[in-house]
Amino acid sequence: MEQTQWSSAEYVVQRQVLDEQRLDEVAQKGMWSTKPTVGEQIRESLRCSVPRLKHIVLTWIPVLSWLPHYSIRENAIGDLISGCSVGIMHLPQGMAYALLASLRPVVGLYTSLYPVLVYFIFGTSKHISIGTFAVISIMIGSVTERLAPDSNFFINGTNGTDDLNIVARDSMRVQIACSLTVLAGIFQMLLGLVRFGFVVTYLSEPLVRGYTTASACHVCVSQLKYLFGVKPARFAGPFALIYTLVNVCGLLPQTRVPELVISLVAFAVLILVKEINECYRQKLPLPIPIELVVIIAATIISHFCELPTTYGVNVVGEIPSGLKAPRAPDPTLFSQFIGDAFAVAIVGYAINISLGKTFALKHGYKVDSNQELVAAGLCNTVGGCFQCYAVTSSLSRSLVQESTGGKTQVAGVVSSVIVLITILKIGSLFENLPKAVLATIVFVNLKGMFKQFLDVSVLWKTNRIDLLVWLVTFISTVLLNLDMGLAVSVGFSVLTVIFRTQLPRYSLLGNVPGTDLYLDMESYRAIPGIKIIRSSATINFTNAELYLEFLQEKSGIEIEKLKAERKKLEAKQKRDQEKERKRNKKEAKMKVRYPITIDKNNQKDGGGEDGRACRSGIHSIILDLSTTSFVDTVTVKMLKTIFRDFRAVDLDIYLAGCQACVVEQLEKANFFSESVPKSRLFVSVHDAVLHILSKQERRDFMPVSG
Amino acid sequence: MEQTQWSSAEYVVQRQVLDEQRLDEVAQKGMWSTKPTVGEQIRESLRCSVPRLKHIVLTWIPVLSWLPHYSIRENAIGDLISGCSVGIMHLPQGMAYALLASLRPVVGLYTSLYPVLVYFIFGTSKHISIGTFAVISIMIGSVTERLAPDSNFFINGTNGTDDLNIVARDSMRVQIACSLTVLAGIFQMLLGLVRFGFVVTYLSEPLVRGYTTASACHVCVSQLKYLFGVKPARFAGPFALIYTLVNVCGLLPQTRVPELVISLVAFAVLILVKEINECYRQKLPLPIPIELVVIIAATIISHFCELPTTYGVNVVGEIPSGLKAPRAPDPTLFSQFIGDAFAVAIVGYAINISLGKTFALKHGYKVDSNQELVAAGLCNTVGGCFQCYAVTSSLSRSLVQESTGGKTQVAGVVSSVIVLITILKIGSLFENLPKAVLATIVFVNLKGMFKQFLDVSVLWKTNRIDLLVWLVTFISTVLLNLDMGLAVSVGFSVLTVIFRTQLPRYSLLGNVPGTDLYLDMESYRAIPGIKIIRSSATINFTNAELYLEFLQEKSGIEIEKLKAERKKLEAKQKRDQEKERKRNKKEAKMKVRYPITIDKNNQKDGGGEDGRACRSGIHSIILDLSTTSFVDTVTVKMLKTIFRDFRAVDLDIYLAGCQACVVEQLEKANFFSESVPKSRLFVSVHDAVLHILSKQERRDFMPVSG
Repeated sequence: MEQTQWSSAEYVVQRQVLDEQRLDEVAQKGMWSTKPTVGEQIRESLRCSVPRLKHIVLTWIPVLSWLPHYSIRENAIGDLISGCSVGIMHLPQGMAYALLASLRPVVGLYTSLYPVLVYFIFGTSKHISIGTFAVISIMIGSVTERLAPDSNFFINGTNGTDDLNIVARDSMRVQIACSLTVLAGIFQMLLGLVRFGFVVTYLSEPLVRGYTTASACHVCVSQLKYLFGVKPARFAGPFALIYTLVNVCGLLPQTRVPELVISLVAFAVLILVKEINECYRQKLPLPIPIELVVIIAATIISHFCELPTTYGVNVVGEIPSGLKAPRAPDPTLFSQFIGDAFAVAIVGYAINISLGKTFALKHGYKVDSNQELVAAGLCNTVGGCFQCYAVTSSLSRSLVQESTGGKTQVAGVVSSVIVLITILKIGSLFENLPKAVLATIVFVNLKGMFKQFLDVSVLWKTNRIDLLVWLVTFISTVLLNLDMGLAVSVGFSVLTVIFRTQLPRYSLLGNVPGTDLYLDMESYRAIPGIKIIRSSATINFTNAELYLEFLQEKSGIEIEKLKAERKKLEAKQKRDQEKERKRNKKEAKMKVRYPITIDKNNQKDGGGEDGRACRSGIHSIILDLSTTSFVDTVTVKMLKTIFRDFRAVDLDIYLAGCQACVVEQLEKANFFSESVPKSRLFVSVHDAVLHILSKQERRDFMPVSG
Repeated sequence: MEQTQWSSAEYVVQRQVLDEQRLDEVAQKGMWSTKPTVGEQIRESLRCSVPRLKHIVLTWIPVLSWLPHYSIRENAIGDLISGCSVGIMHLPQGMAYALLASLRPVVGLYTSLYPVLVYFIFGTSKHISIGTFAVISIMIGSVTERLAPDSNFFINGTNGTDDLNIVARDSMRVQIACSLTVLAGIFQMLLGLVRFGFVVTYLSEPLVRGYTTASACHVCVSQLKYLFGVKPARFAGPFALIYTLVNVCGLLPQTRVPELVISLVAFAVLILVKEINECYRQKLPLPIPIELVVIIAATIISHFCELPTTYGVNVVGEIPSGLKAPRAPDPTLFSQFIGDAFAVAIVGYAINISLGKTFALKHGYKVDSNQELVAAGLCNTVGGCFQCYAVTSSLSRSLVQESTGGKTQVAGVVSSVIVLITILKIGSLFENLPKAVLATIVFVNLKGMFKQFLDVSVLWKTNRIDLLVWLVTFISTVLLNLDMGLAVSVGFSVLTVIFRTQLPRYSLLGNVPGTDLYLDMESYRAIPGIKIIRSSATINFTNAELYLEFLQEKSGIEIEKLKAERKKLEAKQKRDQEKERKRNKKEAKMKVRYPITIDKNNQKDGGGEDGRACRSGIHSIILDLSTTSFVDTVTVKMLKTIFRDFRAVDLDIYLAGCQACVVEQLEKANFFSESVPKSRLFVSVHDAVLHILSKQERRDFMPVSG
């Protein structure tokens, strides 16, 4: 009797009409339940064996799995070249970004050294270059400047004016930055240990792009003082960016011309050569290390023209040679930047993982998001003890690492060696480097982030809600600073999901002629007497009431009115009955014995018919629940109400297309009962329609039983 | 050719296989687009006419619409009786709850008077009784005690000890409570004006029940001091409840026996008579006004036994007769309780609307949620100027109002008259009423709320996630107090929706034999070579990655591996080709001319076949998107990636069952292109399967073209 043809382009189905009960029979549901019990699962997860242990060790320390198979012939040359290129980039970027974090340049160099080595051991991405990055640096900078502002370190000078105790200030700032870094690392490790890598999914692409664009604005504004050589006041809290900008504008007349000239020249050179790099990418074996060239040139010029003494140009100053002994972080500071540390942890990881996944997809390997979290945490925790500040991967360096032929994390080790040599031998030569040059390098590196403003027009065309997320993220981050801005953006981005679920599109479905399809266009053939209703999103407590309202509106049935009418009718009938009874009594006294109860029944039926007529002949409503993915208490209650109230006015309610998990949840919530049998639940809208029509047919055939 | 039978219990369909393009033709989509333009909509909404104006006025001032039709014959007696009963309840409750708000009892009486009259004019619910309520009172109390603690009002007494300046303290507290009430009212009106009545949907039923249960605990603890006659220290901030409880326990040895005895006696009487009321509800015409009886009896006993002077029992004290002139709120205080005011506004409204809707459903009329918000706002704003504190509807009073035959808001007016008479004439008689009696009344009224602890076991059986919401709400509200607790609970409750969307059930679908149905049970007949994948919830940025992972895992296809293999293969081929070329050159030199390019092609095909074999013959993947209700940028990107990457390894991807709105959004996001034609989108999974099978058939028939 049942047959389904796999014909070429014909859709032919012939089967029983299936409700949930019959489906259970046909599909023989529940026959293959081979789920392991909870006990078995626990036992399984506690089982211990050598291969298992080996697997665990290899998961936690990935270097053990890939380094033994390292093919020198295939990878060594690529890794060496790419490591050298990246190492050369680390030097100027490290120093420049350290300035951004309000730290001494050498800290940036440390940051380009230790964490890279830690990542070599624990990281799973082969192409990202761990180290300093603008966004994280500015986040660190806002904390160091807040907790150790210049104003705290003035000492009474000899000539009457107050002098700044730079050494004490810088030492304090390093201590703050390192403690924050350790705390951020601890957060990352904890999140990684409890397998919470998924938190980063809340940072959707539009959010991250809006956030980094806003950070770029913060970076820009914070570097203006070096470009113009002015000393604006420091602002904290909301709107700090605006205040700083206004302050800098007010100070523009005091611009120091030498520094401005240096900035402009460096800017022009950097932009020009970067464009050349871009254009001739295919032909150049390596990109020209223009940033390094610029800082070397600037240092030489500054040294021989005696810029610091003659023109008072602000320079980097003494760079200590050699490495420092590790120093424990100061846990007493933790409470003062716990929010910032969390923001640093999340943002740092988010940038890592998104870059890592991009490269992994391109080169066909896997990055483990939880292991990445642990790796980032270890980089920061270890680094924080060695005077490093928080790290993440930098897009520009990672692109160079990949494009110059880097194949594995070994490239990172090579770059570390270059940084190490610089710190030990060459670093101190840079002491005459003007800070304006470093600021210019930061500026030029922001180009890519500012390009993200183009997202606005793209998103306007493709997805307005994601545009809204982008804009809210950007504006809140610009106005409220980087930590609060992130919190607000994530909150808003999560709310968009809620809103989209909360305000779904409700539709009356109509039959596409000649098919079993029901589409949300009111102009399709509506089946006489049947209303089919669908919500585009899952029904839950946020929109259950809207659903009910739509149902009443579109079915043209105002339950309240109908019930009130029915109540009145009943009251009237009661009164009539009362009268009747009295009359009966009277009549009984007069010994007249015609029973008139049949009459009354007829009258009642007539009332029912009137009620039905006033709602234009609708007798059945089908609720298409195929889009519902879970049900909560509120939804179950709402559905129960629908069944109860619509039954009260002689309307049949059917459910269609519930997913198996929804049926399970309904069963658990005691939804099905005598009055709401499971046979009201059909596998598809068409099944429900066929069932109703066949019932109607029978009713038409046997009017007495209807 | 196409036919669909409406046979009795048979499901027979015969039609074309439909992809989205053909569906457009068959369904003649877009022919009936009669949406009004934005301009037309604006013009429509700005149109002004007399009926329109009348409608607006009647919407804003509902009393005008129902009072003219008020049927004295039908309603007057019911309203009178019910009004009297409610008025009698207002007296003890008003005084008791005012104590809870740390205000003088007369303020509670005012609160039972003015707002009720305002609600009569603007309210749409006929059965709720506006006035004092435990939860709101304790919220107000926490603010008054925080901003005007006893310690602020000690003045140097004559006998060396400090005396409490009660008058100044109470006056300050009234000012604070009234200002808070006005602010809460303003919030409510603003929310009502911008039609934000929906915010209350975030307060789902489990949340509200958990919250009120936790409030009941707060109320309990705050009343202990009156029951035992002790004077604990005041605690604020998180864990205040715990500290207070510990403190009270420590003070138990100092319990004042007279007050304890009074409490116990009153408690016993109240419980007993309330049980009687409950049991004989059907037989009693009106419930026994036991609360009133108890306070009258207690006052008389207290007066004649001279309890205050002889035993030092804490009594209500002077109750001023007569009404007070209105007083403006103090806006300078607003900043100190803006959060509390918002919480009061939301909670008050939430209780109102949930009670109102319950009664409306029962009696067949409609409450307008936005108008209710405006009405509540006006009650509070006007009330706040007349020494009232924030109001909401009380469950106990509303039930009495309904069950004693109240038909309309007129009952409220009647109850106001009774309260007014009390304030003007009788109130001052209550000055010897022991506060312990009022505390006992509060206690006994909490019974219903404590019964809500039974929710835990019910929810455990029916819905664990809603149980979690209940418990988190309860615990956070108990520990963090009422304002912070509400914020945390709403946040958590919203996150549950996100989590449920974020962690859907992914399933491989199988065909139910002999039907067009595909269910999420892996044991159903899998169609050879085709994998069908469905996520139980909508795909969005929070779960897009999980979806991709599941797809790769379940299809047994590791894109990265396959791509890496393919890359190696290509590299090898390139090398081979290179070798070949060299050899060719050599051979060319040797003048041998057999071309071997065909050989190479064969080899390549073979490689492809190997690749296909290793994934056990899967050639097509169908993504069932019927549960997806919207797409964001991340999802579109993910889908594009799937299409691109799986094409790269010779797998066909099809989409099935997209809702019309999803198709629109995909179109807008430029998803469809040459490489992803719209014909890849089928109306149902079965259509897609039929299409693939027919394609396969043709391929099998014509192996060359495959």
